[in-house]
Amino acid sequence: MTPEHFLDVFFKPKSVAVIGATRNPGALHYHVFANLVKLGYPGKLYPVNPGAAEIAGIKAYPNIKAIPDDIDLVVICIPAAAVPAAVQECVEKKIKAISIISGGFSEGGSEGRKVQDRMLKMLRANGIHALGPNALSPVNSRLNFIIGFGPCDPIPQGGLSFIFQSGLYQPRFNWLMHTYRMYISKLIDLGNKMDITEVDALDYLAQDAETSVIAMHCESIAGDGRRFMQALSKATARKPVIVLKSGRTPAGAKAASSHTGAIIKSGDHVIEAVLRQCGAIRAQGLDDFFDLAKAFEYLPAPKSNRVAISTLSGGEGVLATDFCYNYGLELALLTPETRQKLKPLFPSWELNVNPFDTGVSMQFYPMDEIYPVLLNALINDPNVDSLLMHLGGVQPSDPVKQAKLIGDLKRHGKPMLAWDVDPVRNKDFAEQLNLQKVPVFESAERAVRALGTVYRHSLRK
Amino acid sequence: MTPEHFLDVFFKPKSVAVIGATRNPGALHYHVFANLVKLGYPGKLYPVNPGAAEIAGIKAYPNIKAIPDDIDLVVICIPAAAVPAAVQECVEKKIKAISIISGGFSEGGSEGRKVQDRMLKMLRANGIHALGPNALSPVNSRLNFIIGFGPCDPIPQGGLSFIFQSGLYQPRFNWLMHTYRMYISKLIDLGNKMDITEVDALDYLAQDAETSVIAMHCESIAGDGRRFMQALSKATARKPVIVLKSGRTPAGAKAASSHTGAIIKSGDHVIEAVLRQCGAIRAQGLDDFFDLAKAFEYLPAPKSNRVAISTLSGGEGVLATDFCYNYGLELALLTPETRQKLKPLFPSWELNVNPFDTGVSMQFYPMDEIYPVLLNALINDPNVDSLLMHLGGVQPSDPVKQAKLIGDLKRHGKPMLAWDVDPVRNKDFAEQLNLQKVPVFESAERAVRALGTVYRHSLRK
Repeated sequence: MTPEHFLDVFFKPKSVAVIGATRNPGALHYHVFANLVKLGYPGKLYPVNPGAAEIAGIKAYPNIKAIPDDIDLVVICIPAAAVPAAVQECVEKKIKAISIISGGFSEGGSEGRKVQDRMLKMLRANGIHALGPNALSPVNSRLNFIIGFGPCDPIPQGGLSFIFQSGLYQPRFNWLMHTYRMYISKLIDLGNKMDITEVDALDYLAQDAETSVIAMHCESIAGDGRRFMQALSKATARKPVIVLKSGRTPAGAKAASSHTGAIIKSGDHVIEAVLRQCGAIRAQGLDDFFDLAKAFEYLPAPKSNRVAISTLSGGEGVLATDFCYNYGLELALLTPETRQKLKPLFPSWELNVNPFDTGVSMQFYPMDEIYPVLLNALINDPNVDSLLMHLGGVQPSDPVKQAKLIGDLKRHGKPMLAWDVDPVRNKDFAEQLNLQKVPVFESAERAVRALGTVYRHSLRK
Repeated sequence: MTPEHFLDVFFKPKSVAVIGATRNPGALHYHVFANLVKLGYPGKLYPVNPGAAEIAGIKAYPNIKAIPDDIDLVVICIPAAAVPAAVQECVEKKIKAISIISGGFSEGGSEGRKVQDRMLKMLRANGIHALGPNALSPVNSRLNFIIGFGPCDPIPQGGLSFIFQSGLYQPRFNWLMHTYRMYISKLIDLGNKMDITEVDALDYLAQDAETSVIAMHCESIAGDGRRFMQALSKATARKPVIVLKSGRTPAGAKAASSHTGAIIKSGDHVIEAVLRQCGAIRAQGLDDFFDLAKAFEYLPAPKSNRVAISTLSGGEGVLATDFCYNYGLELALLTPETRQKLKPLFPSWELNVNPFDTGVSMQFYPMDEIYPVLLNALINDPNVDSLLMHLGGVQPSDPVKQAKLIGDLKRHGKPMLAWDVDPVRNKDFAEQLNLQKVPVFESAERAVRALGTVYRHSLRK
């Protein structure tokens, strides 16, 4: 049996105390505790608030020391000035794991940095590990253990684990989880990285059996970079690791330093070389980061680079083909058998070729009849390694049924993905496809870029 | 008085006959005629269908020659095989303008090309101009004159005119018009470009007083390119022209030839040089194309490149700053007066700097109180040329009122734009901002790229 990783208790605590739990639904941190209750986190909960006897029906305590039981994890969300005293109490209570949500430390200038340094000294002297400060986590989907500012619903469970340097994801948390539909294992926000850094998070998630893909956002790299490279290489040897390194320009680096207090010491060319050498997949921006995280979690690797495309307009088919070329993918040449099967779908004058313009077929048949024939034929063609679909403003008459039929084609083990050009009018169908784990992206370019990156990554093995 | 342009009648016909108008709501082209009736196009309508006495309450005719009146524009949407005979009838009826929606000509191979060539000869011999075949247009927002396959609502009226080589925009027509909210003047789909080409369309829209921005999608360039360069240069001298040239890769060019029958003769490096020399703005993909079309129509040119950013998370502020640097924009250094005004919004430990992380302020004040103070102060700062806002999963309590307040700040003549990371949960606010002509984009990267392009274009004057 491998010894337990020191971060394990952060993700799987059997008991959690929340210092700063409140009954005031107007307070920003109200949902930190409320979510745990509402979501049915199965561990024991201890709200800590000197002004309340109970919160959400659970007995409250005036301070951490007043709790009679042992506590696995303490979450702190009180004003910065009160945090050191709370940490001191945790020391006395012999707590081993703390998550400090409160901000106002190293990111606020030299005064805050001094307080943070003193706090760290106290923690180190007592063998305590801490997340943050200025960090909003952790999250473990399988335990419904979600630390977040907004009201949260249970999140889809899957293999994707996120490392964030900051609360970047918070304003889109519900969108990411429930609209874009990420299938999550764990999420860790590092904040000021006083104690726990991306090195620890990588090390943990690399060995975590519930994590199949790691997506990491970072502004700075802790320490001298050697440990980071070791941890990153170890992780990429086991699973895909997508990295979004921001603060890559001089202006961005300056902005980062006033945000999490991170000092960015290396130029971006160094980072680029490090990420490449360690086998990480670098995201070029935030859209790319979330797209790649989704693609790697949803999709198997394609056997090769030959793509079949079903479009709603010839013009978008041409653009998708351009993107394929740019991202190292080829348009599949269908076998004569497949073309024979597809012949009835197209008028005699329409060249029955890849990309297949179903906008033409829909002049003759309803979408519901075209999709099963077309997609079955394409996915069964031995020359097709992946299948791309263009969704638009018209949904099938039964989105659930169509998505199920399409989802069933995943049994062929080939990547199937879609892009949707009308997320409003095509909402149900896109939602159903994501539920079937056929990922929907926001444009042809983004779908092709994601697939191309999954393909390129598969070549390295 | 300038003589009337020959394309004028296509956009402002006083009377329109639709050959192939139908009473069958299941037919793909049902809405071609139905939209004109429903939208209240103010000209006279003549449905042509040998099997109906009236359509939508309007007297129908068995053929075009049976109509007793003169007709400005004939729209043809019947199967390809029947089109040449219909065109022959138009010749006999002395029609001067035809829009051929039907496909199945040069895009379908050599047989179709021969038929198309014969048809063109007939048109040329009789001084008739024709759009298409395989083209779905025109559109003139101000007359509620919309030729489209789907059911359409009246579209927002503005200065943006589109030229498309194909029905590329159809699957997202309603999304573009009503969700992304493009303010449209005219739209022309060229299809196979038998007669009317992008040269004519550019020439027309360049002199059209109702068009302030031209956005053109093309797969091929008609003729030897000289007339194209002349028309393009003339247009860019008067208004911004955004060009999306697809079929730019060998694979894409091949796909284009089976789509609209276009032969792409020049390598992309030639196109690149031509577009640059003629002063066009080249879009890099479809997302970029629509973003730039929106940005140029919505925004005034900034006086210089100094940007103030209001974010919902410090991390996204860092990313936005990186993008600004990449696209030639700078973070504005606020005056001491402005920073004084903003001081109360941020806690003492938060460095009150650009980009401004309102995620921190919202720990103390509701969004509704932060925005008016913050945005007013920023827009009034003499060091700020443009204002960018990050929208997320939480809306102001009164989206209409907040959007109105923000819209009013446009009086300062500075570009104001937003990006929205949760189009579902922030739907109302984004919608209201677009209504106020404060454009909302889909990500920080895309908003910054759009603003950077508007800024760079302004430098050329």
